[in-house]
Amino acid sequence: MAQIEMNALSVILCGSFSVRIFLPEMDKLALNDAAHEKKYPVLWLLHDEGGAALDWLATPAEKLAAKYGIFIIAPDQHHSMCTNMKYGPRYEHFMATEFPAICRNNLPISSDPKLNWIGGVGTGAYGAVKMALKHSDVFSKAVSIHGILDMEELCRKAVQGEETGTTQNLASLKAVFGDLDAFPGSDNDLYTLADKNGDASFLFISDDTSCHHAESVRLAEALGKAAEQIMVAEDNEFISCGKSLPEAIRWLTK
Amino acid sequence: MAQIEMNALSVILCGSFSVRIFLPEMDKLALNDAAHEKKYPVLWLLHDEGGAALDWLATPAEKLAAKYGIFIIAPDQHHSMCTNMKYGPRYEHFMATEFPAICRNNLPISSDPKLNWIGGVGTGAYGAVKMALKHSDVFSKAVSIHGILDMEELCRKAVQGEETGTTQNLASLKAVFGDLDAFPGSDNDLYTLADKNGDASFLFISDDTSCHHAESVRLAEALGKAAEQIMVAEDNEFISCGKSLPEAIRWLTK
Amino acid sequence: MAQIEMNALSVILCGSFSVRIFLPEMDKLALNDAAHEKKYPVLWLLHDEGGAALDWLATPAEKLAAKYGIFIIAPDQHHSMCTNMKYGPRYEHFMATEFPAICRNNLPISSDPKLNWIGGVGTGAYGAVKMALKHSDVFSKAVSIHGILDMEELCRKAVQGEETGTTQNLASLKAVFGDLDAFPGSDNDLYTLADKNGDASFLFISDDTSCHHAESVRLAEALGKAAEQIMVAEDNEFISCGKSLPEAIRWLTK
Amino acid sequence: MAQIEMNALSVILCGSFSVRIFLPEMDKLALNDAAHEKKYPVLWLLHDEGGAALDWLATPAEKLAAKYGIFIIAPDQHHSMCTNMKYGPRYEHFMATEFPAICRNNLPISSDPKLNWIGGVGTGAYGAVKMALKHSDVFSKAVSIHGILDMEELCRKAVQGEETGTTQNLASLKAVFGDLDAFPGSDNDLYTLADKNGDASFLFISDDTSCHHAESVRLAEALGKAAEQIMVAEDNEFISCGKSLPEAIRWLTK
Repeated sequence: MAQIEMNALSVILCGSFSVRIFLPEMDKLALNDAAHEKKYPVLWLLHDEGGAALDWLATPAEKLAAKYGIFIIAPDQHHSMCTNMKYGPRYEHFMATEFPAICRNNLPISSDPKLNWIGGVGTGAYGAVKMALKHSDVFSKAVSIHGILDMEELCRKAVQGEETGTTQNLASLKAVFGDLDAFPGSDNDLYTLADKNGDASFLFISDDTSCHHAESVRLAEALGKAAEQIMVAEDNEFISCGKSLPEAIRWLTK
Repeated sequence: MAQIEMNALSVILCGSFSVRIFLPEMDKLALNDAAHEKKYPVLWLLHDEGGAALDWLATPAEKLAAKYGIFIIAPDQHHSMCTNMKYGPRYEHFMATEFPAICRNNLPISSDPKLNWIGGVGTGAYGAVKMALKHSDVFSKAVSIHGILDMEELCRKAVQGEETGTTQNLASLKAVFGDLDAFPGSDNDLYTLADKNGDASFLFISDDTSCHHAESVRLAEALGKAAEQIMVAEDNEFISCGKSLPEAIRWLTK
Repeated sequence: MAQIEMNALSVILCGSFSVRIFLPEMDKLALNDAAHEKKYPVLWLLHDEGGAALDWLATPAEKLAAKYGIFIIAPDQHHSMCTNMKYGPRYEHFMATEFPAICRNNLPISSDPKLNWIGGVGTGAYGAVKMALKHSDVFSKAVSIHGILDMEELCRKAVQGEETGTTQNLASLKAVFGDLDAFPGSDNDLYTLADKNGDASFLFISDDTSCHHAESVRLAEALGKAAEQIMVAEDNEFISCGKSLPEAIRWLTK
Repeated sequence: MAQIEMNALSVILCGSFSVRIFLPEMDKLALNDAAHEKKYPVLWLLHDEGGAALDWLATPAEKLAAKYGIFIIAPDQHHSMCTNMKYGPRYEHFMATEFPAICRNNLPISSDPKLNWIGGVGTGAYGAVKMALKHSDVFSKAVSIHGILDMEELCRKAVQGEETGTTQNLASLKAVFGDLDAFPGSDNDLYTLADKNGDASFLFISDDTSCHHAESVRLAEALGKAAEQIMVAEDNEFISCGKSLPEAIRWLTK
């Protein structure tokens, strides 16, 4: 097992960023492979709202990278939900361009969209699905794990002064999306973007006892043949993504 | 020498935060000190715009903490400039209340304002001086190292489409301060706050070949007897704060 | 949730050491607790042979520290098996004296042996049980998780040129224990130490399908009333200590 | 500026290892470089006795990697002095084979000996010079910074019960070298190895006020035309390698 913490500077983010990377098994390394030309598949992985890339260390991510021989690359994205923030860094642009380029310049990873997948948990799933819908030239598959996907509903609650059920509130949603009344139908609205899906395919992992379950079902239906669904009930409160992440990577690599 | 990286959750920031901590020398530890009741002075230290707390590892911070027997606690503050952002986290509130409380709950540090000092470099110096001006009940002394202090000027440049000379631009300054026309005279304007200084005292370290030098001089003059000034020209491009930070801590601990 | 990585210098180890620390929940912090006098219980936790403290991030350790309001402190111990190495650092001495003192000087943890427990997995369990047997004035309880406990057997295999089933071999066992023929009956032999147990109590968590299971049973029997046993079969290859560590902490805190 | 912390498993070391890596400037990254075929020079860098790879963060290493467009790769090597320990891990073998291979498999670095250099400070310099003397097929240049090079003298002091002036003592030197009486003339004795130098070239940076200065002079003389010498007096106690490391990299890259 192997992992990396990288800290570097981004031109697009106007500052430093931090990323956790899980590597394929190195004790199987062919020490006489002089050329080092193999390029590995990559799962780009987005943490939940209020979390950080560090959270993935408490999941099976490292062991799955070793088992399946893939890179898993998880950046910190703070409260951006992988969006070009109205008031803040342009994470969508960063994730679609500079960040893969920095990683490809420094790690033996494939630039073939067929071998570049993106996933996320909670609002990270919102970001992952959006990236694949808008940038299928970069990411060919997306996995939503217990996704919080209906941002229109989240904005509506915030505007009406209701609890959003996340760490997002009215001010932070405005920082991300700007005018919340203009959200429905915008290019941050997954249900609108679903009609314009290119070649990407999707897996929605959700738990039918969750209040967000219907959001996954509805989006999967809107995507039609491009989407599959799996129910996973996580029965152990202590283990994040203990069942869902293995399912996700099985689906991505099959 | 000793150092800590702490990652924890903040209620005020609505999410995780990361902090680097440099400790007093531990090889002088009295192993038979059963009570462990000593409380150490603290320098709270703010990084420059576009940087991160990690940057302090390339400065003499760790060795100075060991030499002077103080804690140096440096949080990541992203692009907030230690301000309650209009669109983003409320860092000023976090730095004045929850963050010291979390640290005091977990580290042997003094809560006496006389032993709590705050410093910063670049725009981090702006944040440090502001905190001491507004929260002298928490921080009794502030050090500005090569400070970028005149935010009115920075806002003016951004509004007029000029280069700001920092990684801040029009959108990011609006995210921090909201309506930029309302900045002058606001409670984020150091030159206005200078009139209301309580008991805090200040040290301005600057380099008279820098374009920001005059900002330090002007603010020091506005603060009158509460402020001292030192010129430090850093002659080694490779060493951040190699001369200024030792000067800062000598002044704080004298 | 919160965690710390600390790097510091040890006089006993003649050099730097690294430790991972998981903290009690901080979002429950009483911000008006001016005294900060609460001292928390501590589980000192030892990794398996060939591993590192970092491994604990892939277990429920962080969530359990938050849930139960305890500190979990996990040092790197390399190949020492928490022993005063014949050729190498004196980890037993470090763990019994300097290391708790450094941590107590810097963290709000109890020095009461009743609130100081030690645990480990694999050969880390060997170290944990040994520490409690020899230093019950420091550690009142020990937990062995899937312990590799019979070092006499391990030494015998290494001497006879058999696979030890661990990353220890003849040279590394000699580095730790010196003359391997003198091991049986020495003060590194748990089955000899069991007769001299002071006040410490023990929990052995093992899996009856494991080849090391009988070592736990035999040692628990030798300890008599001081020891309890639990069978835990970890059914998910991806989750380290997913069931055993929660059981361990339930037992320690009851 | 950019840096990596990597934790991975080594077959040769029988366990995990930790390494700090400083990268070439990434904000100059050609985002349209689709092939990512550039291979960078590497300086492999060894810390002093009792230290750790983390120590390099307090030096200009990160800025120098960015400035000169090279990778600087610094592993933890504990008390091994980059030697195949008699009682402990085989670091020399690890550094000459598996470690470069792991790094080359995961980073865009050259495997050309002409672009692979090794350096160290204190006893790390002993390791660096030894590696280049014995493995000039891997490392073509070595830099000794304030080197502690005469291990025969160190062993003699330890045997006679004198202070060694380092954190090494009789037991730890035996762990590294085995029978200390057999050290002189062995293949760990730099002054013996100097006669067998292949194609490697050397730079000795030392300070003529240091008690170890003569060791550098004597070894440089033994190496003849293969060696150069520079005097660097570090005048700032707070800055490690502030002058010597820039000199080292200037020499390596010229």
